Amino acid sequence: MGGLKDKTRSIFPKGIAAFGPITAAKKRAIERELLSIFSQWGYQEVIPPIFEYLDVMAEGLDEEMITKGYKVVDRGSGRLLLLRPDVTPQIARMVATLMRDEPLPLRLCYSANVFRDEEEHAGRERELFQIGGELIGMETPQADAEVVAIAIEALRHLGLRHFKVAIGQVEFFRGFLNGLGLSLQVRKKIRNAVARKETSELEEIIRQAKIPSKVAKKITAIPELFGQEEILKAAEPLVNGRETERSLARLEQVYQLLTECGYREHLFIDLGEIRGFDYYTGIVFEVFAKGLGYALGGGGRYDGMLGKFGYDCPSTGFAFDLERLYHALNPVSGVSNHHLLDFLITNSDNQSVKAFQLASALREKGYRVALRVWDGNLKETIRYAHGIGIKKILLIEEQEGASDQVVLFDGPTGSKRQFKTNRLLSQLSSKKS
Amino acid sequence: MGGLKDKTRSIFPKGIAAFGPITAAKKRAIERELLSIFSQWGYQEVIPPIFEYLDVMAEGLDEEMITKGYKVVDRGSGRLLLLRPDVTPQIARMVATLMRDEPLPLRLCYSANVFRDEEEHAGRERELFQIGGELIGMETPQADAEVVAIAIEALRHLGLRHFKVAIGQVEFFRGFLNGLGLSLQVRKKIRNAVARKETSELEEIIRQAKIPSKVAKKITAIPELFGQEEILKAAEPLVNGRETERSLARLEQVYQLLTECGYREHLFIDLGEIRGFDYYTGIVFEVFAKGLGYALGGGGRYDGMLGKFGYDCPSTGFAFDLERLYHALNPVSGVSNHHLLDFLITNSDNQSVKAFQLASALREKGYRVALRVWDGNLKETIRYAHGIGIKKILLIEEQEGASDQVVLFDGPTGSKRQFKTNRLLSQLSSKKS
Repeated sequence: MGGLKDKTRSIFPKGIAAFGPITAAKKRAIERELLSIFSQWGYQEVIPPIFEYLDVMAEGLDEEMITKGYKVVDRGSGRLLLLRPDVTPQIARMVATLMRDEPLPLRLCYSANVFRDEEEHAGRERELFQIGGELIGMETPQADAEVVAIAIEALRHLGLRHFKVAIGQVEFFRGFLNGLGLSLQVRKKIRNAVARKETSELEEIIRQAKIPSKVAKKITAIPELFGQEEILKAAEPLVNGRETERSLARLEQVYQLLTECGYREHLFIDLGEIRGFDYYTGIVFEVFAKGLGYALGGGGRYDGMLGKFGYDCPSTGFAFDLERLYHALNPVSGVSNHHLLDFLITNSDNQSVKAFQLASALREKGYRVALRVWDGNLKETIRYAHGIGIKKILLIEEQEGASDQVVLFDGPTGSKRQFKTNRLLSQLSSKKS
Repeated sequence: MGGLKDKTRSIFPKGIAAFGPITAAKKRAIERELLSIFSQWGYQEVIPPIFEYLDVMAEGLDEEMITKGYKVVDRGSGRLLLLRPDVTPQIARMVATLMRDEPLPLRLCYSANVFRDEEEHAGRERELFQIGGELIGMETPQADAEVVAIAIEALRHLGLRHFKVAIGQVEFFRGFLNGLGLSLQVRKKIRNAVARKETSELEEIIRQAKIPSKVAKKITAIPELFGQEEILKAAEPLVNGRETERSLARLEQVYQLLTECGYREHLFIDLGEIRGFDYYTGIVFEVFAKGLGYALGGGGRYDGMLGKFGYDCPSTGFAFDLERLYHALNPVSGVSNHHLLDFLITNSDNQSVKAFQLASALREKGYRVALRVWDGNLKETIRYAHGIGIKKILLIEEQEGASDQVVLFDGPTGSKRQFKTNRLLSQLSSKKS
């Protein structure tokens, strides 16, 4: 991220995170905020395994994830290990195998890195930090709305103001295509073109497949079906059976619920929003920040996933990409560029014990304190302290008589005052962080 | 860890962490506490890369770590990638390449998992969660003492009472051996036997190498040199040159400093403590908890490491093994076995908006709130709530008239009271966590 990351790329493997103190602090702050919000909504953190046996996990993974996953031979068993490329199937499997006796709904969250061996020219990250949540065992519109609401609340708490959530419904698109009586091959081509919003390609596919113009019109309309509540009306002509009818009604319920909860300013419906994992089965969404060309996160309903691991159970969830969030938040983030230390204690070589004790007393009061051996050079010491963001320096000199004295150099000029140690401590109020 | 982990081993790869909610919460709590202590001591968190190019990192790694490291071919470059088996060389390299303009001392910390492909019958973990700190650019006894002091303070803050820090000095042992005029091969054998405290093996090596009995006595004395300050005296006969003299003096300074700071009850000197990485060059230490047969963590001085990456700079540091800490802390840990949610809101299908709004108002006040659609079965709802550790249930019924009413079921019996929503909210005091 930022300057650090660019520099690292020459020696560190490309696309793998290596963060210095400033970036690491911001990542930590965002993680804390998001996990705290998940906790407020009743989500419990779990830690999914970083390696999985490929043969076990393949069942739940999209093919692309299997291709892109880093693989290592397991020395003991000879089986292939996969570095996790996607967390949701892992959680599904953890629940299906280890937590199936837990009362439902089950709310779980995680902070985990995933790995995808992207081709280098794609310029993509190979390690993504994801923080997400899964709501397992609720089939209702309220569950679909809950995960969207958490995403919105999280971004609001993080201080992001200009963002939008695109709500799609993959079941509607699937049902519509299935109702047209087209071959599987043509349906696949259409799906791909719509997902990539390639309208001219879409028209070519329609021409070649000799689809009648009345139907063709409906197909080409889909990528245009984004906006507010009017889209629900505009989509009605595309209803061609129970699946489309039901899925459009569901979309309306979820959209309305979120609107009534005051989230309308952040919402839009996008029936052409059919990207994402193959395992999605219903309401899906992606989060976009103003001025950024990629999604900050997203998710959706995946009612078939847990069944693949032997525990049939409806589920929905989403995840944020922490690094993208960081970029979106950068200008508004509350984490300062400076390391917020309160005191530097500098002491002559034979005053280490006193320095340790003073530091300990200050830390007891909640202050952050670093130590440095006094090299007799005040200017250099001030330069060091300011360099790491400390304003106050406490000097413990090598003294014969008045051994409980410290000298405080304060502020940018280092204005000097002498204190008895006890006096200084009693004057400082507690600063618990 | 615990029951969860044992169950997971059949499907999850052996030795790779997979933690359910209870264990994950404890891991998170320990991590927070440790990072907070590092922060109080002026350490800034960094995130080292999870993959490294093997050719780049090999320079700083112990041979055993290279052997045990998981390796993957990098698709783009064809070079071998290594999943990090040890963090300290990574930090050294980050500092030497990216942070060499930073003022010294530099204090860095991290929370990172490392990977070692241990043979299965060894019963060891292949993924270790390490939280550690590195103090870079300080050569003084005070720096050696600082890292030991942090380890002790951290364990005290975590509530562990019965633990000991074994302080060794690899420079003393190395200097002593070098002063004996033995072949490199014999020195290596002796070192291995002492490290494993194999006294009979040691005697056999001495016999075969025809070492005179006066010298032999000194060698076999080393594994017995553990205790308090008396060891400093007992080691004096082994001083055979400048290196042993200087390194024993350093050990005395560090021990004394820590003793004067009030840490004596947790300390002992162990001159036979020469295990650990080959890159250690001075004071080393390991932390042991009462009743556990393995170290909770450890570290030491590694003055030669940064130089290997082109930036000659004395350094010391240490790390805790989070999972071992967890086991040591288990009986005293403050994290409850239960998920501490405050309210379950249960609502009929058409009262979702009201449920969301009430939940939101409660979260504003700092409460943790989960939702569940009302299935008309109070007993089942109470069972669910208690199952996930919630005592208070708020029911929003499908109502015609008095639509701002909620029913509160409180306590183990679910005693019932009706409230106006506003009234309920105004009666609840703020509970900011």
